[in-house]
Amino acid sequence: MRIAIEEAKRGIKTAFPNPMVGAVLVDKNQKVIAKGFHEKPGSWHAERMALSDVEIAPQGATLYVTLEPCCSWGRTPPCIDIIQEKRVSRVVVGMLDPDIRMRGKSIERLRKNGVVVEVGVQEEACRSLNQRYLKIRSENRPTVAIKAACSVDGRIGDVHNDSKWITSKESRMHSHRLRNIYDGILIGSGTLIADNPSLNCRLEGGRNPTPIILDTHARCPSDAKVLTAGKRPILCVASDACIRNDLNVDYLLGEYDGSVLNIRNVLEKLYQKGIYTVLVEGGSKVHMSLIKEQCVDILELYIGGVFLGGGSSWGAGINFQLEQAPKLNLRYIEALGSDVYASYFWES
Amino acid sequence: MRIAIEEAKRGIKTAFPNPMVGAVLVDKNQKVIAKGFHEKPGSWHAERMALSDVEIAPQGATLYVTLEPCCSWGRTPPCIDIIQEKRVSRVVVGMLDPDIRMRGKSIERLRKNGVVVEVGVQEEACRSLNQRYLKIRSENRPTVAIKAACSVDGRIGDVHNDSKWITSKESRMHSHRLRNIYDGILIGSGTLIADNPSLNCRLEGGRNPTPIILDTHARCPSDAKVLTAGKRPILCVASDACIRNDLNVDYLLGEYDGSVLNIRNVLEKLYQKGIYTVLVEGGSKVHMSLIKEQCVDILELYIGGVFLGGGSSWGAGINFQLEQAPKLNLRYIEALGSDVYASYFWES
Repeated sequence: MRIAIEEAKRGIKTAFPNPMVGAVLVDKNQKVIAKGFHEKPGSWHAERMALSDVEIAPQGATLYVTLEPCCSWGRTPPCIDIIQEKRVSRVVVGMLDPDIRMRGKSIERLRKNGVVVEVGVQEEACRSLNQRYLKIRSENRPTVAIKAACSVDGRIGDVHNDSKWITSKESRMHSHRLRNIYDGILIGSGTLIADNPSLNCRLEGGRNPTPIILDTHARCPSDAKVLTAGKRPILCVASDACIRNDLNVDYLLGEYDGSVLNIRNVLEKLYQKGIYTVLVEGGSKVHMSLIKEQCVDILELYIGGVFLGGGSSWGAGINFQLEQAPKLNLRYIEALGSDVYASYFWES
Repeated sequence: MRIAIEEAKRGIKTAFPNPMVGAVLVDKNQKVIAKGFHEKPGSWHAERMALSDVEIAPQGATLYVTLEPCCSWGRTPPCIDIIQEKRVSRVVVGMLDPDIRMRGKSIERLRKNGVVVEVGVQEEACRSLNQRYLKIRSENRPTVAIKAACSVDGRIGDVHNDSKWITSKESRMHSHRLRNIYDGILIGSGTLIADNPSLNCRLEGGRNPTPIILDTHARCPSDAKVLTAGKRPILCVASDACIRNDLNVDYLLGEYDGSVLNIRNVLEKLYQKGIYTVLVEGGSKVHMSLIKEQCVDILELYIGGVFLGGGSSWGAGINFQLEQAPKLNLRYIEALGSDVYASYFWES
C-alpha cells in the first residue's frame, strides 16, 4: 500500500477535480508485477493503468489500491470490471470512496463475485492524499471551479463593459479543454442574456458539459443558443411557477429567499442529479456568491496581454482583509501566446 | 553579418533592456572562427563572447558585429578593448549605437588605433533587431520597467490599504534580481513615506541601483532608510527652493507645472545623468503617469496567491477603451511557489 500511495502522488498537480489514486499488483511473494496511478480527468484510473498490461493476474496476486475502485461508467469503464476480467482474486483497499456512486457498492459487488476484499489498510495515509476531494464529497456538492478572464490589471471589461476580447483566441480555445473536463458549466442569467453563449465543448472529440443556468425567474430567451448547442441544459429557478413549456430544459428548484437562489442548495441538488464537477464561467456576481459561501475549489484564471486601467475587476464587492483573505495554491501555469493561464487550488 | 544577426536573435527573450547583439569572427577566407551574442544584462557582450576563446585573431580576420561595440565600462569591460587585445584588424559594424555613451565614439577610437572599420552593412536588418531599444534611445530617455505586486484579482492592497504581504517572500527575494539589472529604482514620495524602503539589492554579489525619488517638494524624512542603505539617491524636486542641506543626495530639478513634475523631462535628465534603465516600484500614481506619457517599456508583474475582492487595483484612473488599450507581449513567466512572476513587453 505504501507503494500505491507513492504512485497516487504522481497525480498531485493534475488529478484534481478527481481524487489521486494509486494501485499496485503484487504476486503471492509480494513482488510488484504492475502499478498505476490516475493522471488526470479523462485518463485511465489507477487500477486500469496497473492492470492493462497484465494478461491474467497470477494465482495468489493481490491488488492494492488507495481508494475504493469505481463501479460506474464515466469516461472510462468501471474499474471493478477490469479487476474481474484479469482475475484478481484479492483486493486491498485503502478507504471507501465517499462519492455517492460508490460508498461501498463496489466492494459489495466484488465480494459477490468471489473477490476477497479488505478495506481500511493504511486508511489515514490514503485519506490524507485527498483531503480536498473528501471535504467536497462530505459536503454532498460537486467540485467547483471558477473561471475568470481578465486584463493584466484584473479587469473583466473596460469602463464601457466591453470585454470582447480581453484574452486571445488561443486562450479561448484553451478554455474548451476545461469544458471537456467538467460535468457542468454554470453561468448566471445575466451572462446568458448579455453574451448568449453556446456553452458547448468545441474541441475535436470533446465532450459537451451540461449547461446550468442560475435563472431565478426563468428569463432565458427561447432562442438562446445554449438550448440547442449541446446537452440539454438545467435551468435553476425559484419555484414551480417559473417552469415554462417553451424551453427544452430540465428544471432544478433551488431554495429561494425572495432575493437570490441559495447557491449551496443548488450545488447539492446538482450533485444529486449527477453533476460531480462544475466549471463556473460567470458572471462576477455568481463567482462572488460562491466565494462567500466557501464553495470554490479551483480558480482557472486567464490573464490577457492588455492593460485597461479602469472597468470592473473580476473580484469585487467582498472586501476581505488581507490577513483573512482566501489563499490560493498555484498548481499550474502556462503561457498561451501573450496570455497567461494559471490554475489554482482555492484554500478557504 | 547574416550569421551575426542570427546569433543576436538568441537573446530575443532575455537581452532587453539591453539591445540584442551578435558577433562573428571570420578568417580571410570568410570561414567562421568564433561567434557570440548578448544573452542578458550583466552577461558578456557579443564581441567578448565571440573573442574570449580566441588566442590572437589570425591575420586578415574580420569581426562582424550587428551594433557598434561599446567603449565604456558597464558591468563588463569595454568591447573595443578586447577587439584590440585580440588584434582584430578589421571590424564590420551593422549600425551605430544611438546610446549617448557611443554614437560613433567607439568607431573613432578603433580607427585611431589602426583598426579598419566599416559601418552600415545590412543596417536595416540590424536595426530591425532592436526597434524597441532604438525607439527608446531616440527619445533620449532610459528604458522604463514598472513593477507591480498584486493579488489574483489585481489588487495592491485590501480596503484598508494593507499590502504586507500580498506576494510571498520568494517573490520579494526574486524582485532583487530585477534591482540587480536596472541602473535606477524610481519611487514616488508617497511610497517613500508610507513604506520607508531601502531600495538596495540584497542579492549576494548584487549591484545596488541608484534610488530615485520623485519628491516634488522634498518631503523625504531625514532618517529615511534609502539615504544610507545603498547608493546615494537622486531626489527629483520642483525647484532650487527644495534643496535641503540635511540630506546626502543628488538633486534633479524637473519641469514643474505647479502640480506635478513632468515625468518625461525627469526621465530625460536621468538619462543625461547616466541612468540608462529604470525600474519603477510605485506607487500606482507614478505608474499611471508613466503609462499616460507612453514611457513604459516593460511590466514586471508579481501575482500573489491571495484573493482580496476589494481594495485598490494596481492599474486605475486611466480608463482605456478595450480597443485602444495598450497591448502587452509576454516575454517570460515563472511560478514562484504560489506566486506567478510574469514579465511583459509593453506595446503602446
